[in-house]
Amino acid sequence: MQSKLSINDERLLNRINELGQIGRDKEGKLTRLVASDTDKFGRDAVVKWMKDAGLEIVVDYIGNIFGIWSSSENESKDPIMVGSHIDTVINAGMLDGCYGVIAGIEMIKTLKDGGYKPSRPIVVGVFTNEEGVRYSPDMMGSLVYAGGLSVDEALATVGTDDTILGEELKRIGYAGTKEPGFLKPHAFVELHIEQGPILDSIKTPIGAVENLQGISWQRVTVEGVANHAGTTPTAMRKDAGLAAAKVITFLRDLCNKSNATTVATVGCIEFEPNAINVIPSRATFTVDLRNPNEQKLHEEELELDKYLKELGENYGVKISTERLVRFEPVTFDENIVQLVESAAKERGLESKRMTSGAGQDAQMMARMCPTAMIFVPSVDGISHNPKEFTSGYNLVAGANVLLDVISKLTEYK
Amino acid sequence: MQSKLSINDERLLNRINELGQIGRDKEGKLTRLVASDTDKFGRDAVVKWMKDAGLEIVVDYIGNIFGIWSSSENESKDPIMVGSHIDTVINAGMLDGCYGVIAGIEMIKTLKDGGYKPSRPIVVGVFTNEEGVRYSPDMMGSLVYAGGLSVDEALATVGTDDTILGEELKRIGYAGTKEPGFLKPHAFVELHIEQGPILDSIKTPIGAVENLQGISWQRVTVEGVANHAGTTPTAMRKDAGLAAAKVITFLRDLCNKSNATTVATVGCIEFEPNAINVIPSRATFTVDLRNPNEQKLHEEELELDKYLKELGENYGVKISTERLVRFEPVTFDENIVQLVESAAKERGLESKRMTSGAGQDAQMMARMCPTAMIFVPSVDGISHNPKEFTSGYNLVAGANVLLDVISKLTEYK
Repeated sequence: MQSKLSINDERLLNRINELGQIGRDKEGKLTRLVASDTDKFGRDAVVKWMKDAGLEIVVDYIGNIFGIWSSSENESKDPIMVGSHIDTVINAGMLDGCYGVIAGIEMIKTLKDGGYKPSRPIVVGVFTNEEGVRYSPDMMGSLVYAGGLSVDEALATVGTDDTILGEELKRIGYAGTKEPGFLKPHAFVELHIEQGPILDSIKTPIGAVENLQGISWQRVTVEGVANHAGTTPTAMRKDAGLAAAKVITFLRDLCNKSNATTVATVGCIEFEPNAINVIPSRATFTVDLRNPNEQKLHEEELELDKYLKELGENYGVKISTERLVRFEPVTFDENIVQLVESAAKERGLESKRMTSGAGQDAQMMARMCPTAMIFVPSVDGISHNPKEFTSGYNLVAGANVLLDVISKLTEYK
Repeated sequence: MQSKLSINDERLLNRINELGQIGRDKEGKLTRLVASDTDKFGRDAVVKWMKDAGLEIVVDYIGNIFGIWSSSENESKDPIMVGSHIDTVINAGMLDGCYGVIAGIEMIKTLKDGGYKPSRPIVVGVFTNEEGVRYSPDMMGSLVYAGGLSVDEALATVGTDDTILGEELKRIGYAGTKEPGFLKPHAFVELHIEQGPILDSIKTPIGAVENLQGISWQRVTVEGVANHAGTTPTAMRKDAGLAAAKVITFLRDLCNKSNATTVATVGCIEFEPNAINVIPSRATFTVDLRNPNEQKLHEEELELDKYLKELGENYGVKISTERLVRFEPVTFDENIVQLVESAAKERGLESKRMTSGAGQDAQMMARMCPTAMIFVPSVDGISHNPKEFTSGYNLVAGANVLLDVISKLTEYK
């Protein structure tokens, strides 16, 4: 047992801070869009830390970076992989993704420095374009790595700035030479901030993430009839805006009766003609519906369909839906989730089984191998924002749980 | 009794059509914004028809045009006035306002040609800027005439095209020389298309308009907290968009329990940040609430306030309101309304007592003298639109009812 080993608190926190200074503009805002100059500088820093830890650096075609610790005794075995991403949204915090990458390097260095001899190689991965801000879709690097999207298609993606991802990766020196998926992990573990308020609200330092919500995005269009707001009696109205409002309240009712597993959000809305004294002829809005159970998510989509149909009949409006995104939920590996729980317990840390509400590289890696995630609290649940914050204590705790989980995973067999 | 007199159907309908051709663009769209070149051409046509009918033309400072039929026997008495407007919205129909003006001229010409000797002068008025599209507020000419807005303030109004109303009226030759209000009518009657669907839906040719809705316009702002659509549990959400939806459905419930007297419309809405996977931090929307009874309208405004307060407490959002417009309802003169009903009956026409849902010049004139309105059906309730339509039969019927009502009003005393 290596339970006496612990990561170097100071080095971990300093590096998070150091990477967090790369890509700041004159006003101090942090932005490292994938394959940009700032992303290059961030990647260079991470590669340097990997080299300092004595890792072999491999970059694949889609620009995913892997730092590999193997030995002649274990190199024939499938590796244990950890990892996350270092690309950011615009005006980001310092922790999203970066924490998992830096803690992964720190974890390997701690094991190496501690004289630990793993039965399998240990690899830390940095996945390209998790955020999807500049190029769509998000989680692209891990999706390509897991075989869900072809390399050629991904590299040909045109960005919001009309650049081509493949050319930009070449330009910054991170168009690699290995076929994605060249290493098939024995297991994958991603350490990440929660990006939600649950752990912070219950003051629990460790989340043992057992699944990841399925995501159903639709655009709903209601067509009614524009009429004068003063002269049209209530009974003769075909108010597209009212129908939209009914759907929003229906979705909240759906969540309320789901025993807290379903979340639903109407984030975008538009009325036409959008005039104060005209009944809306058209309402367009988005529905973001999430549930960690595929059957339930599907049932709820059907419930929504049924409600929309009734609404159309009752209010004389025409309702159509357009599918934008549909991801099935991911169930993580029960053995690894239990390892996270027991590792936390052995460190004297409370843990909570939970669902990842956000999309993650781990959800793509789960297609390849047993996978799970470790969450640490996000204060007030804030993420994708400069106010994103997790205490040093919790960041260190999470990294030590990662250390223990990975060393246990390398002991098996 | 002059009940044998009837207006000249062909001349009425031809003139409506003729005025409706003035101000069409290359695509055939009809637009006569107040004090524009096309408004001038429309005014010129109307003045010519007034002169043909032997009327004295007077234009006041705000550009209202009056065609006066008086004699040495009746000129000392307060006149009976009819009238409406000929300015239009952009891409308008041919009837809104114009019908009342042309029918007024036709009514006087019919009485004159029939040898009728009224006990009072009869006047047809054309009010400046009823639509309020180019200069605000709407119903400006009648408001100034009734003393609700000073001439100087009105003439100084800056338009959406940065022009000044007073200068534009001069430019088109309709800056007149009389003080608005120079004639105090004994009574005022406005004939107008309904601009709503009620008469058309019950196939009733005449509306005896007994009152005009009070109008309450507010802008409501809900401030919640933006959070991730996936990671934020339902119970921890402060969803500004949900609160907005609750208000929209509350308003419909309010209307449903009002026994059809209240109408409410949320015509404009905006969410921030308006992103599919972010809970809205802010929702802004307008409330258009109308009721013909001032006490009820006030009570409903208080009910809305109370609901907003509860909503804020229950959903953890901050709600503020901004008053945009508030007009008290207008109750028209019961005697004139009864005259409209009896005149319709004598012509064998069904009539219905009703409320004007739209603002009208008559609501301003009601400040000066006993006033009422006559409505004719708008097919499908459509107005402010090229599809605005009333059958020739109904247009003629309305003009004949106007003829009978005015001749009865001039018989009294």
